[in-house]
Amino acid sequence: MIVSNNGENFVMKKNISILGSTGSIGTQTLQVIQNEPENFDVFALSAWKNLELLKEQIIKFRPKYAVVKDDKLAKELISKLNHKINCHILYGEYGLTKISTLPNVDMVVVAITGMEALKPTMEAISAKKQICLANKEIIVSAGEIIMQKAQENEIRIVPIDSEHSGIFQCLEPEHFENIEKVIITASGGPFYHLKESALENVSIEEALNHPNWQMGKKVSIDSATLMNKGLEVIEAHWLFNISLLKIEILIHPQSYIHALIQYDDGSMIAQLSDHDMRIPIHYALHYPLRLKNTLPRINLAKIGQLTFKRIDTKRFPSVELCYEAMRQGGTLPAVLNAANEVAVNAFLNQGLKFKDIIKVVSQVMEKHQNKLNPGIHDILSQDRETRKLTEKICKENI
Amino acid sequence: MIVSNNGENFVMKKNISILGSTGSIGTQTLQVIQNEPENFDVFALSAWKNLELLKEQIIKFRPKYAVVKDDKLAKELISKLNHKINCHILYGEYGLTKISTLPNVDMVVVAITGMEALKPTMEAISAKKQICLANKEIIVSAGEIIMQKAQENEIRIVPIDSEHSGIFQCLEPEHFENIEKVIITASGGPFYHLKESALENVSIEEALNHPNWQMGKKVSIDSATLMNKGLEVIEAHWLFNISLLKIEILIHPQSYIHALIQYDDGSMIAQLSDHDMRIPIHYALHYPLRLKNTLPRINLAKIGQLTFKRIDTKRFPSVELCYEAMRQGGTLPAVLNAANEVAVNAFLNQGLKFKDIIKVVSQVMEKHQNKLNPGIHDILSQDRETRKLTEKICKENI
Repeated sequence: MIVSNNGENFVMKKNISILGSTGSIGTQTLQVIQNEPENFDVFALSAWKNLELLKEQIIKFRPKYAVVKDDKLAKELISKLNHKINCHILYGEYGLTKISTLPNVDMVVVAITGMEALKPTMEAISAKKQICLANKEIIVSAGEIIMQKAQENEIRIVPIDSEHSGIFQCLEPEHFENIEKVIITASGGPFYHLKESALENVSIEEALNHPNWQMGKKVSIDSATLMNKGLEVIEAHWLFNISLLKIEILIHPQSYIHALIQYDDGSMIAQLSDHDMRIPIHYALHYPLRLKNTLPRINLAKIGQLTFKRIDTKRFPSVELCYEAMRQGGTLPAVLNAANEVAVNAFLNQGLKFKDIIKVVSQVMEKHQNKLNPGIHDILSQDRETRKLTEKICKENI
Repeated sequence: MIVSNNGENFVMKKNISILGSTGSIGTQTLQVIQNEPENFDVFALSAWKNLELLKEQIIKFRPKYAVVKDDKLAKELISKLNHKINCHILYGEYGLTKISTLPNVDMVVVAITGMEALKPTMEAISAKKQICLANKEIIVSAGEIIMQKAQENEIRIVPIDSEHSGIFQCLEPEHFENIEKVIITASGGPFYHLKESALENVSIEEALNHPNWQMGKKVSIDSATLMNKGLEVIEAHWLFNISLLKIEILIHPQSYIHALIQYDDGSMIAQLSDHDMRIPIHYALHYPLRLKNTLPRINLAKIGQLTFKRIDTKRFPSVELCYEAMRQGGTLPAVLNAANEVAVNAFLNQGLKFKDIIKVVSQVMEKHQNKLNPGIHDILSQDRETRKLTEKICKENI
């Protein structure tokens, strides 16, 4: 961190904990950090199961703490490290919460997927850590509670998702009241060119084959159903306190423009960058500064054209489900999120058809008795219940 | 002007003087102002020769002052107004300077073309007026002197030109040092699709027929030669204190993106808006606020595509002349500007061929003995000399 003191600039290192260091965002975060040893110290890493990669990362970055899924894996990691490296090994939610809150930690990168991120993130906010957030699920399910906690603790949550990083960069705080519309772009995923009937029989391989981004499996499938974009609308609503009525999705197959803000004086401000998640990661790590890097630049003359289309919510009804979940609020967004996660898993591993992913989510949402103003415990227990119910409904559909 | 005082917002009207109220920018400025009687009072108007329109404007907006070219026209205007309206009629440079500096004036909109704007603008800056600048010539010819004066007086010059308004809006002052590149877009004008040989015999009508914008004749021809874009590069250099090496031109035929800033962390911020000069005018009049209006919005889904090309400086050598003038500095940019103005006039009125406009400018620049660190008087006398010389060279080329 560059701090100005009496006119002199000096660099203060940030101590970083990365929740989910072996995943797609986690590894890319470490790629950014390894180029800047003067700016960052890796304080803690966490992985769920990938011990081999975690071990490599521990040897390379020498964190003080590492966290794995359970005590069995913790013992395995300890034996792999062979007592040669001084690193505390913790496990489970306790471990994740610990590395998110220890006094020496300056910044927590939340790069694990799923609801497991909720408690550590809430605790990190309470401990007034800087938060770089890549997890969608907790904001979708518990956005109101998280943002309220952030406000109480005067913590700015900086998003890592490219679209939300884009919004963050286009947003002029002094003109917040002048925001007429926030537009999130969507590549449309691998199937946007297909007719509705052709969506019946797409394969897992086709669904995973995203045209622009290399991502984890879950988010790749969410991109193919466009559920990802619907979830991003909910996320944008909570992260930036923007009314749902003002958030739109625009199909932009080249994915160079990530977000645009239409101000009510007629000007639009847009953020563009290459398809490289290290760009929004780098931005989040350094916010409020911009810091020079050598990540890829886009060259519009070479790219030649950017195209745009209206989103077809008839063919991709996931988006409407997300708007509906948000309109109703309460526990429904958490239900949507949990049902989708289970259905995507059933598509990837149990033979659920692609088109049935959203059908299942819709069925689960219809059965839900909504609870308004839920607390954290309501959301977590609803999440668990929904998963069970969705597994059942998936089986009926397979 | 909305001013916050002890937590309450109240509206304070701005007193505006418009230099050049009957031209393209002037009339559009009045269109903006007439919708906001609560925000603006028209304090003074000026026209060069168009007495009919000026009379109409005086009757409608009731300014305290009006300025015309000379005493003859002043008398004519007085008799047209028939003593029925209480408006002081002034003329010439004295009049323009007066309405730019009178104590009651809050803001001066500089919408006259040519070097006649120089003295009134300098005096307005000294009198610490807010400046909305639509005139290119004075910044190209005397940018250094004007910006120094603005700095001394702590005056922010807000540009009205769409590209510079775009830069202004994308520029994050706290990240000024992180600017890697400033990109100004160019529609390419009516001839960008033509081969070099086809440029030989284009007509005045064809050259005036700009694909996207309705503008004055001079700037329309400058758009056809791309000189306009070269002049804008020089302008951007001075207005924003950006090195020439960092300013690029990008051909973007649809003219929806006006400017982009590439930051050195990989992100680009862009400004987009419809082809309506009232948008940057409205922005400049209200800066630092954004204020809601009903001016046209762009709909990217409807527009469908934005295209981009590298600029071809071989076919359009005007751009290289501008970069060269800036590299050498001194009085050369003023020479370029004056020579171009005379050559464009010779094309419009005396039969100079389209391709010879830039040839003439180049010849005049070659003959110039540059003078470095010129003062205002050096620039103005060089301007006059260059016009004479260029007229002579034009005649030789016709």
